[in-house]
Amino acid sequence: MRQLKDKHMRLNGGGDGSSSPPASELCVMATGGGAYKYHDKIRDVLGVDVLREDEMECLIIGLDFFINEIPCEVFTYSEANPMQFVEPSDNIYPYLLVNIGSGVSFLKVSGPREYQRVGGTSLGGGTFWGLLSLLTGARTFDEMLELASQGDNSKVDMLVGDIYGTDYNKIGLKSTTIASSFGKIFREKQQAEHEAEDSGGLHHKDQHHPDQQTPSQNAQPSSPDGPSPAPAAHGGRPYSAADISVALLYAISNNIGQIAFLQSQIHNLSHIYFGGSFIRGHPQTMNTLSYAINFWSGGAKQAYFLRHEGYLGAVGAFVKRQPRNWGRRRSFEQTALELRMRARTRAGPPAVDGDWNVAGEEVAVV
Amino acid sequence: MRQLKDKHMRLNGGGDGSSSPPASELCVMATGGGAYKYHDKIRDVLGVDVLREDEMECLIIGLDFFINEIPCEVFTYSEANPMQFVEPSDNIYPYLLVNIGSGVSFLKVSGPREYQRVGGTSLGGGTFWGLLSLLTGARTFDEMLELASQGDNSKVDMLVGDIYGTDYNKIGLKSTTIASSFGKIFREKQQAEHEAEDSGGLHHKDQHHPDQQTPSQNAQPSSPDGPSPAPAAHGGRPYSAADISVALLYAISNNIGQIAFLQSQIHNLSHIYFGGSFIRGHPQTMNTLSYAINFWSGGAKQAYFLRHEGYLGAVGAFVKRQPRNWGRRRSFEQTALELRMRARTRAGPPAVDGDWNVAGEEVAVV
Repeated sequence: MRQLKDKHMRLNGGGDGSSSPPASELCVMATGGGAYKYHDKIRDVLGVDVLREDEMECLIIGLDFFINEIPCEVFTYSEANPMQFVEPSDNIYPYLLVNIGSGVSFLKVSGPREYQRVGGTSLGGGTFWGLLSLLTGARTFDEMLELASQGDNSKVDMLVGDIYGTDYNKIGLKSTTIASSFGKIFREKQQAEHEAEDSGGLHHKDQHHPDQQTPSQNAQPSSPDGPSPAPAAHGGRPYSAADISVALLYAISNNIGQIAFLQSQIHNLSHIYFGGSFIRGHPQTMNTLSYAINFWSGGAKQAYFLRHEGYLGAVGAFVKRQPRNWGRRRSFEQTALELRMRARTRAGPPAVDGDWNVAGEEVAVV
Repeated sequence: MRQLKDKHMRLNGGGDGSSSPPASELCVMATGGGAYKYHDKIRDVLGVDVLREDEMECLIIGLDFFINEIPCEVFTYSEANPMQFVEPSDNIYPYLLVNIGSGVSFLKVSGPREYQRVGGTSLGGGTFWGLLSLLTGARTFDEMLELASQGDNSKVDMLVGDIYGTDYNKIGLKSTTIASSFGKIFREKQQAEHEAEDSGGLHHKDQHHPDQQTPSQNAQPSSPDGPSPAPAAHGGRPYSAADISVALLYAISNNIGQIAFLQSQIHNLSHIYFGGSFIRGHPQTMNTLSYAINFWSGGAKQAYFLRHEGYLGAVGAFVKRQPRNWGRRRSFEQTALELRMRARTRAGPPAVDGDWNVAGEEVAVV
């Protein structure tokens, strides 16, 4: 933020703090919890006005802007066709926005700035990050996604085929369907117990209540140094951090996809947009969300994604402010281009700083 | 099972293998995946007939039996009134059965033996067990529940109050609502980073993308010896196994409760029964499920629990077989009493062995 402020002052006549205009001409739009919690701190440290805007309202203003104004922004995802761009229809309402940050919000949007938060789940990006911080040596979100891309969830997830040996046709479940996320860790422990019993005869224990489990040779310590340790073992081999990561990514994405579908059914919404910084353009995440919507709706609905999925709130706050000399329609082409260019050069600071909202804050420097 | 077989043979005239009647008079009813996967093994080892029955059908036959025939079986749960028994109405249909085993099935039941599996989630008992096997030193399901009962989820979960510093009234979220399960682990890491920045000035980093996280002093190894290690640290203190356990219990139970409510809305079902061995009569689990149904329905719906929640499939298979000399109505009083007595004396082997269905099997010896 300070760099953006300095840049603003340079561009508006000031040099390196020499004869810059008063900082009060600049203001910071902020949304989310951080806009309340860190309001005074940001204002005092930067010496600029900080204007608070409602998080949910900014999200939908931002999304409306992206849908309506930015070409090649909204797309559907499939493995065969990873980025199929979609042109906006004349009337985009009503729709469901699923915003996946640390937690997840489901917003029914009925018209411009007309919305209702119809649900939420605490199983979101923060859960992924938090649990993988505990379970793997990965330190960053991107490291975790990278791990996930190398993993095989069938090593830790219990699939329908693991239970039935085949599909469970009567209720339409394929053998590859995940019956229980991380359920194989339990099963392998029990299997080891069964085998121990088999070799000693079946007599010494008649019931297998979970509270009669014998300890396995588990719980190898996880290392603080690298992304490939594993805190437990199966058959003497440790569970891999990659397998654990992809299983958790599938579990969280599938779950969000299912709840999104159910909400869309209840509220009769045919368009489901997924936004928020959890997605980060990660193919497995988008594929899982897409698959879930397609699976549960029997192919009737699709998941829509955005190229700037992590910037809805920040752009919404920026648009809401409507700074002088910035007409929404008038400056459209230039702005769209600028956003796209900045998105492509990740190294440089974006004009709109859509922080991965740990404390829920998103800021736009206007 | 072998003990039950021996007992049967003893009671039916045979001694300890001396002059027992042929084992073919005895048969084992089995449901679930295990009924397919372990069919030949059980038959060969025990030398008895093994009859396979469909898992979902047995679940609802069992539940119907419990609802209609067993007094003081169905109850609602609240902290103030932990076990409020409910008398069955004349027409119990339609209802939603949520069966929580390793995974979770949602069954819409329209009449006797008339059902449809309307949904499922892979986040169930196997997830709880699997992840806590990796994250804590607890070895058994009951140890994990015991840990959870001692934990404080606010140490690892990010609450609305942690984000906003207060309630988020505009969308009706209390400050104590869980915004992100395990989200505080992320936040504490970021906060440490912010503090490091503050002491060194804000200049050296302008963006806080997750991929720029600095490593924390995390990842203490989990010990294989006891239920109180913790695999990561905050502010130098390790996260406690109890806090992690209760956060996961809440996450999974809340999620199941929410999906159950959404399914009940879509299918217009006012009664929601929770069964399966995940529950195990654990107050926190029932409280969370009850709270979720009550919260999402605005008080319009309630969660119903069963005293024999883990035996639906096994009892259903038993009832379906309708063995000679066992009339459903006729022997009602005696059977109910027997089941209740056996449930109270956990040490002894139950007549109906509702195995915690790791591989989905449930067996009834008839």
